[in-house]
Amino acid sequence: MGSLKGKDILHGNQFSKRDIDTIIKNASYFEKELKKKKALNLLEGKILATLFFEPSTRTRLSFEAAMQRLGGGVISLGSVESSSVAKGETLTDTVRTASQYADVIVIRHPRTGSAREAAEAVSTPIINAGDGTGQHPTQALLDIYTIYKELGSLKNLVVSIIGDLKNGRTVHALVELLSLYQTQFYFVSPGALRMPEEITSNLTQRGIKIEETEDMLKATNASHLIYMTRIQKERFTDLSEYERVKGSYIIDEAFLKKLKKKITILHPLPRVDEISTEVDDYPGAAYFRQMRNGVFVRMALLAMVLEGIP
Amino acid sequence: MGSLKGKDILHGNQFSKRDIDTIIKNASYFEKELKKKKALNLLEGKILATLFFEPSTRTRLSFEAAMQRLGGGVISLGSVESSSVAKGETLTDTVRTASQYADVIVIRHPRTGSAREAAEAVSTPIINAGDGTGQHPTQALLDIYTIYKELGSLKNLVVSIIGDLKNGRTVHALVELLSLYQTQFYFVSPGALRMPEEITSNLTQRGIKIEETEDMLKATNASHLIYMTRIQKERFTDLSEYERVKGSYIIDEAFLKKLKKKITILHPLPRVDEISTEVDDYPGAAYFRQMRNGVFVRMALLAMVLEGIP
Amino acid sequence: MGSLKGKDILHGNQFSKRDIDTIIKNASYFEKELKKKKALNLLEGKILATLFFEPSTRTRLSFEAAMQRLGGGVISLGSVESSSVAKGETLTDTVRTASQYADVIVIRHPRTGSAREAAEAVSTPIINAGDGTGQHPTQALLDIYTIYKELGSLKNLVVSIIGDLKNGRTVHALVELLSLYQTQFYFVSPGALRMPEEITSNLTQRGIKIEETEDMLKATNASHLIYMTRIQKERFTDLSEYERVKGSYIIDEAFLKKLKKKITILHPLPRVDEISTEVDDYPGAAYFRQMRNGVFVRMALLAMVLEGIP
Repeated sequence: MGSLKGKDILHGNQFSKRDIDTIIKNASYFEKELKKKKALNLLEGKILATLFFEPSTRTRLSFEAAMQRLGGGVISLGSVESSSVAKGETLTDTVRTASQYADVIVIRHPRTGSAREAAEAVSTPIINAGDGTGQHPTQALLDIYTIYKELGSLKNLVVSIIGDLKNGRTVHALVELLSLYQTQFYFVSPGALRMPEEITSNLTQRGIKIEETEDMLKATNASHLIYMTRIQKERFTDLSEYERVKGSYIIDEAFLKKLKKKITILHPLPRVDEISTEVDDYPGAAYFRQMRNGVFVRMALLAMVLEGIP
Repeated sequence: MGSLKGKDILHGNQFSKRDIDTIIKNASYFEKELKKKKALNLLEGKILATLFFEPSTRTRLSFEAAMQRLGGGVISLGSVESSSVAKGETLTDTVRTASQYADVIVIRHPRTGSAREAAEAVSTPIINAGDGTGQHPTQALLDIYTIYKELGSLKNLVVSIIGDLKNGRTVHALVELLSLYQTQFYFVSPGALRMPEEITSNLTQRGIKIEETEDMLKATNASHLIYMTRIQKERFTDLSEYERVKGSYIIDEAFLKKLKKKITILHPLPRVDEISTEVDDYPGAAYFRQMRNGVFVRMALLAMVLEGIP
Repeated sequence: MGSLKGKDILHGNQFSKRDIDTIIKNASYFEKELKKKKALNLLEGKILATLFFEPSTRTRLSFEAAMQRLGGGVISLGSVESSSVAKGETLTDTVRTASQYADVIVIRHPRTGSAREAAEAVSTPIINAGDGTGQHPTQALLDIYTIYKELGSLKNLVVSIIGDLKNGRTVHALVELLSLYQTQFYFVSPGALRMPEEITSNLTQRGIKIEETEDMLKATNASHLIYMTRIQKERFTDLSEYERVKGSYIIDEAFLKKLKKKITILHPLPRVDEISTEVDDYPGAAYFRQMRNGVFVRMALLAMVLEGIP
């Protein structure tokens, strides 16, 4: 990609292995700087706008924390009801508005493709924080950073991805990035929530080894890492289908006891029932560390997009 | 006015031509400083409180961006439902509260006269960001700044103001300010949404030339500038009246083709249908530049109110 | 307590007289610094997270102002509807999330004990900003600071506490702290809203003189200070009971005329009808000054918790 300065971050597939190495290096740098308890002022005088048209805690708060940790300011659309969207404004006009006030825009919107549409409307850099069932690339990057830190390397891993693989935009971008590193995948889901065929066929064509299964234990025992996802109620139009599949895959102490060796567990959170709280103290449970890594990765991305740090 | 330090900004008519010159000069200064990409710290340690009792995107976000661009901080009431207003608190008590925490307060409230009422309750400077169908003076000032930048002068202009002239608080303050500069006005609206009689008679008494018409094309062809406004659904109690008049005045490519010369187009936004998106690339379409100017003008006003810059 | 660095602030009873003296000294220091109009940067690079699961204006805004007055940044959960809580997340997980992003967390939640539960889940300092009918210790501390400033001393005071003493978490913590200073109390309330028996019996056992009465005038005439509270509609499940008791205790000009001497009046606000606005200009009406003191006390607490200032 060369410099990220002034660029949009829209899709997992825009990053090469070399780009990812750079992002990991910069995230690691900011993580160390924060440990020194230094106030950073790299983005002093800069403004981030957060436009969230869907509920969010983690993504919005970690972007806002990242911006302020670098000395920048934040403006936030707030709830849709209290903004001009309630007056019938189009997404494009709202984004154009934010682009007049801010130096970078983070957007989450229920429509797939909305972030790209926003990026086409303005020259201000757009960061996609989730577009419907599409992509959520900064989540994938923080997942990659977490895997790198937890396992020491990204190469030749066996990874089980579990849960709602159909609607889970998080895992779509993650698979995209991990596949650059000769990862071997187990896709573990109920039949109705399988990984979309365009993703599996693309992986297969590129010689990536994948196996689709409903057997979580077998996949886990063969993996270095499992990536759990929530069965997202808000993605279902038929609630009876949701009720039928939601309890399919659950990690609890009973499950951990069946494992042959320690496993590293990631989850983008929020969780509902799919990881029991009794698992939280398990050494491989990395999902809270994963959240914290989100701040470092987003600091790196903001600094790269706004200041072009190499 | 002398110095604006510690003063309220409540109504368009509080500003003389000389005041407006000063505001334009200061807005222009901050616009240049931001282009140099310098972080400014004039308002470091100061706090702005934003109290919006009605939906807003542009006004709130641009004030919050302006404050932070000058190094200051922001506290925001948020939605009415999540604040003490839900516990039955009066406007005056809410404003008194904010005045204990902040150095300047920006308020939008549906009741005409509410900003003045707030200003009488506290010594902290109050900036009126819209009081019902009353005034919205900072919008008028950013409009003036935009006209000055787009046309090079404020003197002897012919201006068409189009749309809902009855309920449009934005245009009431704008007409007030423009009338100081020998402006000649066309007021273009459906009969039910005409400019209030107290405004037209005041202009006429002062020798300002006005013409009320329903003919948008004739008015536009005779003008240097058109100022479009949205027919605001939320101002109607009778929705059938809204449906009848909303499509009356629309600018699209077909309309532009009928014009004899290039025209400058302003709009306070948000728009719904009254300016087609196909007009956005027209060189005279100044409404996005107008929004950006809002930050510079509000930086000037905040600096003048809080620090008394000359 | 020794240093407050890294500690939680959960309950009024965690503070000794010596702790309170330190907090008063630090609040007074920051009050003076702000009068010098200096921008402070003690907490530069630090982040406060505000998690309010119930409506609030004063507490949230004054914490956010306090943090920014010290140079720090703020992230805020916003309304519950727009956060992951809407996706079914537990309180503990939400708090764990905030603890990954912020250096200190302020929480208000309707469930008694929730703040302690949050504090047990994370090592990041938790400040309780109200847990149901439980505690609200920073309000009690700002009340104490206000009494100290208004009356010049905390020792040997006679204090009337009036209104909803059953559900008023504010007064529970205040009574706890004031009882350290040989205060004599009048508890003035309708029968249904009396001070909980565990509090009165604890005071009596410790030799604190208390009198429960429904006679506001008698109590006031015997006191240095009255502390009014709102009859909180949102605490009633039976609205007819609310309607019956809400008008029981009201301070207006007529009441003031019956007093034998000037009285100091505090109220945590918001008020509804229990203090008439005609009382606001009465010299003893200290409730707006009390609000402002909230910023200084919260600056002191944030600085003590985050930087361990002595």
